[in-house]
Amino acid sequence: MSKVLLFLLTALSVLADDKSAALKTMDSGAVRYGDVSRKIWEFAEVGYKETKSADLLKGELRAAGFSIVENVAGIPTAFTATWGQGKPVIGIMGEYDALPGLSQADVPERKPVIAGGPGHGCGHNLLGAASLFAAVTIKDWMVEKKIPGTLRFYGTPAEEGGGGKLYMIRAGAFKDVDTVLSWHPADHNGASLTSSLAINSAKFRFYGKPAHAAMAPEAGRSALDGLMIMANSVEFLREHIPSSSRIHYVITNGGSAPNIVPDYAELFLYARHPSMPVLDGIWERIMKCAQAGALASETRLETEFIDSSYNTLPNDALAALVDKNMRMVGGVTYTSGEQAFAETIRQTLTDKTKPIGSQEAVEAPKEGPGSASTDAGDVSWVVPMAELGTATFVPGVPAHTWQSAACAGMSIGRKGMVVAAKSLVLTAMDLYTDPKQVEAAKASFEKRRAGFEYRSRVPADHKPPLNYRDSK
Amino acid sequence: MSKVLLFLLTALSVLADDKSAALKTMDSGAVRYGDVSRKIWEFAEVGYKETKSADLLKGELRAAGFSIVENVAGIPTAFTATWGQGKPVIGIMGEYDALPGLSQADVPERKPVIAGGPGHGCGHNLLGAASLFAAVTIKDWMVEKKIPGTLRFYGTPAEEGGGGKLYMIRAGAFKDVDTVLSWHPADHNGASLTSSLAINSAKFRFYGKPAHAAMAPEAGRSALDGLMIMANSVEFLREHIPSSSRIHYVITNGGSAPNIVPDYAELFLYARHPSMPVLDGIWERIMKCAQAGALASETRLETEFIDSSYNTLPNDALAALVDKNMRMVGGVTYTSGEQAFAETIRQTLTDKTKPIGSQEAVEAPKEGPGSASTDAGDVSWVVPMAELGTATFVPGVPAHTWQSAACAGMSIGRKGMVVAAKSLVLTAMDLYTDPKQVEAAKASFEKRRAGFEYRSRVPADHKPPLNYRDSK
Amino acid sequence: MSKVLLFLLTALSVLADDKSAALKTMDSGAVRYGDVSRKIWEFAEVGYKETKSADLLKGELRAAGFSIVENVAGIPTAFTATWGQGKPVIGIMGEYDALPGLSQADVPERKPVIAGGPGHGCGHNLLGAASLFAAVTIKDWMVEKKIPGTLRFYGTPAEEGGGGKLYMIRAGAFKDVDTVLSWHPADHNGASLTSSLAINSAKFRFYGKPAHAAMAPEAGRSALDGLMIMANSVEFLREHIPSSSRIHYVITNGGSAPNIVPDYAELFLYARHPSMPVLDGIWERIMKCAQAGALASETRLETEFIDSSYNTLPNDALAALVDKNMRMVGGVTYTSGEQAFAETIRQTLTDKTKPIGSQEAVEAPKEGPGSASTDAGDVSWVVPMAELGTATFVPGVPAHTWQSAACAGMSIGRKGMVVAAKSLVLTAMDLYTDPKQVEAAKASFEKRRAGFEYRSRVPADHKPPLNYRDSK
Amino acid sequence: MSKVLLFLLTALSVLADDKSAALKTMDSGAVRYGDVSRKIWEFAEVGYKETKSADLLKGELRAAGFSIVENVAGIPTAFTATWGQGKPVIGIMGEYDALPGLSQADVPERKPVIAGGPGHGCGHNLLGAASLFAAVTIKDWMVEKKIPGTLRFYGTPAEEGGGGKLYMIRAGAFKDVDTVLSWHPADHNGASLTSSLAINSAKFRFYGKPAHAAMAPEAGRSALDGLMIMANSVEFLREHIPSSSRIHYVITNGGSAPNIVPDYAELFLYARHPSMPVLDGIWERIMKCAQAGALASETRLETEFIDSSYNTLPNDALAALVDKNMRMVGGVTYTSGEQAFAETIRQTLTDKTKPIGSQEAVEAPKEGPGSASTDAGDVSWVVPMAELGTATFVPGVPAHTWQSAACAGMSIGRKGMVVAAKSLVLTAMDLYTDPKQVEAAKASFEKRRAGFEYRSRVPADHKPPLNYRDSK
Repeated sequence: MSKVLLFLLTALSVLADDKSAALKTMDSGAVRYGDVSRKIWEFAEVGYKETKSADLLKGELRAAGFSIVENVAGIPTAFTATWGQGKPVIGIMGEYDALPGLSQADVPERKPVIAGGPGHGCGHNLLGAASLFAAVTIKDWMVEKKIPGTLRFYGTPAEEGGGGKLYMIRAGAFKDVDTVLSWHPADHNGASLTSSLAINSAKFRFYGKPAHAAMAPEAGRSALDGLMIMANSVEFLREHIPSSSRIHYVITNGGSAPNIVPDYAELFLYARHPSMPVLDGIWERIMKCAQAGALASETRLETEFIDSSYNTLPNDALAALVDKNMRMVGGVTYTSGEQAFAETIRQTLTDKTKPIGSQEAVEAPKEGPGSASTDAGDVSWVVPMAELGTATFVPGVPAHTWQSAACAGMSIGRKGMVVAAKSLVLTAMDLYTDPKQVEAAKASFEKRRAGFEYRSRVPADHKPPLNYRDSK
Repeated sequence: MSKVLLFLLTALSVLADDKSAALKTMDSGAVRYGDVSRKIWEFAEVGYKETKSADLLKGELRAAGFSIVENVAGIPTAFTATWGQGKPVIGIMGEYDALPGLSQADVPERKPVIAGGPGHGCGHNLLGAASLFAAVTIKDWMVEKKIPGTLRFYGTPAEEGGGGKLYMIRAGAFKDVDTVLSWHPADHNGASLTSSLAINSAKFRFYGKPAHAAMAPEAGRSALDGLMIMANSVEFLREHIPSSSRIHYVITNGGSAPNIVPDYAELFLYARHPSMPVLDGIWERIMKCAQAGALASETRLETEFIDSSYNTLPNDALAALVDKNMRMVGGVTYTSGEQAFAETIRQTLTDKTKPIGSQEAVEAPKEGPGSASTDAGDVSWVVPMAELGTATFVPGVPAHTWQSAACAGMSIGRKGMVVAAKSLVLTAMDLYTDPKQVEAAKASFEKRRAGFEYRSRVPADHKPPLNYRDSK
Repeated sequence: MSKVLLFLLTALSVLADDKSAALKTMDSGAVRYGDVSRKIWEFAEVGYKETKSADLLKGELRAAGFSIVENVAGIPTAFTATWGQGKPVIGIMGEYDALPGLSQADVPERKPVIAGGPGHGCGHNLLGAASLFAAVTIKDWMVEKKIPGTLRFYGTPAEEGGGGKLYMIRAGAFKDVDTVLSWHPADHNGASLTSSLAINSAKFRFYGKPAHAAMAPEAGRSALDGLMIMANSVEFLREHIPSSSRIHYVITNGGSAPNIVPDYAELFLYARHPSMPVLDGIWERIMKCAQAGALASETRLETEFIDSSYNTLPNDALAALVDKNMRMVGGVTYTSGEQAFAETIRQTLTDKTKPIGSQEAVEAPKEGPGSASTDAGDVSWVVPMAELGTATFVPGVPAHTWQSAACAGMSIGRKGMVVAAKSLVLTAMDLYTDPKQVEAAKASFEKRRAGFEYRSRVPADHKPPLNYRDSK
Repeated sequence: MSKVLLFLLTALSVLADDKSAALKTMDSGAVRYGDVSRKIWEFAEVGYKETKSADLLKGELRAAGFSIVENVAGIPTAFTATWGQGKPVIGIMGEYDALPGLSQADVPERKPVIAGGPGHGCGHNLLGAASLFAAVTIKDWMVEKKIPGTLRFYGTPAEEGGGGKLYMIRAGAFKDVDTVLSWHPADHNGASLTSSLAINSAKFRFYGKPAHAAMAPEAGRSALDGLMIMANSVEFLREHIPSSSRIHYVITNGGSAPNIVPDYAELFLYARHPSMPVLDGIWERIMKCAQAGALASETRLETEFIDSSYNTLPNDALAALVDKNMRMVGGVTYTSGEQAFAETIRQTLTDKTKPIGSQEAVEAPKEGPGSASTDAGDVSWVVPMAELGTATFVPGVPAHTWQSAACAGMSIGRKGMVVAAKSLVLTAMDLYTDPKQVEAAKASFEKRRAGFEYRSRVPADHKPPLNYRDSK
């Protein structure tokens, strides 16, 4: 046996011991970080308004010795928390924004805490808390074992349509990082090779000329007509774009009073496709539909670009590494109380194909286009990024529902959160101790990227839409 | 000369004196009632919320000796104030509701007092105050001259789309009245033979099935689609209804978030026509458009009937009487300051055909379909009703504009208000002293009505929509 | 009694005798010209294809000594027939085109002669024949009485949407004429002060990119989508143009096969308004709707202007003159057979307000916007034009129906035709013998025209659409 | 070596010799059957009108000793030609209908033989001829080698939207058959595991009430409005059906004249999906859109079901067998003249990813949903069916184009035809001599069918639409 080989085997054996120790330690820390997640669940702050949530996380990280940079990219609730120095630089991302209208108690039936209020229907309370949990655990291990390198927690606000990460990328916050670890609440456990959909969103505002709708409708130019013609045109567009595209919109202002020809109307639209360059072409055609609306109705169009995210670039090397570690961590086992909760929730689901019990397993990474969008997609095009999911939601529960909000506030969500934190910790341990893993991640990144140059579709002079959740 | 003739001539001469005296007395009361109008202008309370405005009017009438019936038809801001006894019973109607979004200072440029707040863009602050002024003056005259008969002030709330008068009619408040006097702020002076448009309004609510718009749009049934198909169908309807019809709508709820297939959407629609029976047919077809929207989109439709008013039935005898009296009263003369105000306002108008100066004249009553709608229309089908307008607004200023709201708060509005009050007083004097006039009014009423039986299109079990101005 | 006066009275008396004589003569010619009308009814040739009809008329006029100019404005079926010389120049217009799809036997029930074939649903067979009858009668009188002046028959093809008269005006055919006499079949008798609607029509052709609609719909650009978006936009336009406007269209090509994304689609549209300058504005907005369709669907738009007619400019002096003469001529009296025919036809009518019997009277000229369009409108803006209608159709029968086509082929139509011919003859007699009448006509013309400069909306380089009736 | 094994090996060796002999013989027959294909190409008869084409094929088969059953299912151009007796019964299908509008000379540039005329853009001239060629060759071999069993040629008309096979199935023509061999012209060679799309098609006819569109548009009920509302509704439907669906339509009658409110309009629509039961649900919703159009426009809807085909059920055993035999046959090699033709054609293609030269290879069977539809799909659900394609078209040339019509008329098409005929012959030889192959085909059929009961969506009382290609 060569010395090198002996060394490696020893190192592996040491790391295995470290991992076991970390998993044990984390079991005792679970309650504490569970409490953090619950507090953020109760704060339920929407995008760019997550002041209390960000403050809580920053406080914990500061107390653990991380140095905090606040107000990243000019966003009050964006921050980084860094510990250590030198290479490699490993990032962990944490989100903490809630969703409007999804206020929900931690019970298995529809019951808002505050009627119409926001709620954590995407489990971002768990997301931020698990990443915090992982960051502090890794730091403790690095201190104890004198592991060189830099660890950075990314406090990334407004994932839900606000695009916080885009502005943090633009501000250079990801420039020196070697690998980023990312996770997301789900109804199953596993490393991810799934992509997400590239997305653009904008508000289309039509300005017309008011008139009394009974006395002189011919004197008015209806902003609502402009909007309707645009919307109708978009419907005709659907047949002539690739089937994998998605376009959806709501009318956020459809006129003020029936007796006045509307001089203002607003439509809020998302368009998505598995590929950003294809989306570019679709987006251009949507713009033409909007212009057609203005042209035909003799109204004026103003388009406010709201958000854009790339499709996620999966990383094969990191997915394999995460998969290995998650199998060490294992899935989520329910108590009889949790089982009862899960079964009650299940009655309310339309799609019941995923059985209860499946949350105990770890699934193999699967490739595919995905059907959601995330600003983590942009991160994946600037740095190798790992992505994993854990069963924070009862099997079959989709994100953005009251059911997911309920799970995110009770023990099932917190159990999934611990699985996530542990998986992040073990993966970071590999990355810090084996430079080959970081290199492999970079190689996977370059292979999939194939020379494509990332450029955010958000206009360069576009400021973070800090008030995008305010109603007009 | 026969005795009868002599008596009549004497009576006429006495009445002429009385009228002269009244006009003089009213000149001194003008400031006081102008103040009342200004207070209501400042209250700027929207339909069914006119608590302070109604209280102010009730207080004045109570102080003048009228007996007040509050909460008429179960409406907190509807009331009657009655004085005297026996026949004839003459009513005077007063409105006092403001319009949302029309907050405006008393200056000749666009300047809201409270941004987005309500304002008196239809001059109903003047309407209620002038009717009060007239009522108190008439009562004083009846007392002084021992004129027999009953005088009733109708405090009619929520004219602007709330239909207050419908419910007061339904509650029997107009059962014993012989003639009702009604006026409205305008940009010119004159008795009116103009009709108004019969109107129905309703909220069309579509209920679908939500789904994640990117993940499973095929699982959703879009309430917004239902609404859009309805709206598109209504546009196709326009060609195939009489040209004199009007249909106009706004979208009051067009979905909540683009990434969710909307499970709720709401459209608020008005339809109008010079004749209620013709409108009935148009309304039925609009219902079919709504049902088609629900059918094609597999959503559920709920229709809430909001309001309905009849076209106004002009009264030839009363118009002639009012015309005669208004010529005695005369129009509105501007001071140099008012002239400057008027000229500045005028710069902001699109239609400048009506010259400044025209407010000094009294115009002859004109027949025509009109282009607005009012719940006074319903009153005109149950009792002979006089209608007149006075130049409270600078010539060319349409109702429901910031310009009209500005005028209603300053001296030009108040001058018009005095012309109205005086015209009502002189006309009431004729009606109280000459039974022939009341009979002629009734004959005119029967002739135009031609046997048509009034029946409000508001469903019999429909309660006053006391919260129709609240946003959902 | 002055000599002048004596002369005038004598002249009047002479003229009265002449008129009586003419009426008598015409009664004997009625059968012959009725036969002409019946032949043209049987030819039933559509616009610009009226070869046999025009030949028949030309033959009659040539035989009567008129000199014929054929192929006016490059149109094979347009001609003029002139007799006499010097001033005044009086024109009589004759039309002879049939309508597609209105083939109908001369029976009071729906029964096409040729299924789907053309028919004289607007009675132009009578129109041309009556004008011929009048022209020959006038000429005979001028010969007999040595009346100086020029008489010209205008053979004007393709009135129904082909705009024959526009091109004849453009070619200078109306340059030297002093007054034009025009009539049209109707369901009543009377001189007309009614206007017609100004009209523009065009074919909107969209060119897309074909693709297999199942394999690669995203590769196609649908011409039909462009058309649909245009049409939808036009529907939204309806609310915001004056109520007196009319827009109507059909889809003349909506794609060839469902499995091919249509690369060609065509919409044929008419727009009308009582005023040409107002129509100009509406037309511009329809163009924008068409452009919006092309823009939103990424297709190419080609617009072919088809036709345009002005609203008719009524002539007060000529209407008074015609009215006077028509009262001398009288209306139409039915035989018992005709009465039975009329009653049977009447059963098939929706609107039965006009009673049988009303065709015996001559109605006073009425002012109004009218609801049809005619290229005679353009003539009325370049020369004083008289217009009258006679009861060729059973009272209540609208033009462009099988009922009118039936009447036009039987004795009722021919009786109305004789009334028309007589009215034209008497009016021409006045114009030839009294220069004041021509001057009055010119004065009326100038007063109504009020300086407006006629300019046809048909592009200057647009050739007569000789094949506009061919299906593609 | 056991006797059985020896026997088998001998049998295999004998069959191998037979196959070699057959391939050789067929090389000499190629010209003759190429001529047949060329004649049908020149006939270019559309669906259900293929009299001369069917007669030519029947004549050849009759001459070869087949017994003909004509007028199958009451369709003049449907027939079967049977030879032999007993089991197994092997069928070969032949189509011969052309496509409207695809007339094209056999030159590599767009050049119709008859402008607007039909042409063989789907290569069905080759289809019928190759199947004939195969049938006669197999029969000759069966005679020579005394092979027991029955051979049947199915003359299946109107594949292009007429659904000929549906009615032949319904008439029982496929009841006794064990396996059916089917092929189709393509731009490559290979056995097929690809499915096709299930399809329904119908004509939606709206009946309104005509009216003069300028005089009384309010009296009309527009059939075109009904159609437009339906079409618009279908556009809104697109978002909420599975992405793999296809809906496409054309407007086959959009009104007759702009000045008449259309009382008739017709839309011709196809809907497709990879699964018939899913298509059922989509179809039901399209019906609702149509009903909504009628409801909202107060018109009457009549739906004529035109055609329906199932998605093709691939057969794994038969695909493997065909694949093996095709590799023995090989692909298509071009002469230098054909190479030049191919390169010229290629210049005209949008998608040039498939290189020239690829037609020389035989591709492995690929699974997938496909993007076309065929009535062979129905056959595949009632009997095990083999499906293969050969390179009759230059690589990259799609079906239903002038390019494919050109290829189908010249030597490249005929070379592909020979590859097809040979592949059918070799496969039939296997099926006749090895009962295991027929059993395997049946087992594959039952496995994929999974108990699903075939039932055509064409209504039971629906007769073959023999005139579906006639324009109205």
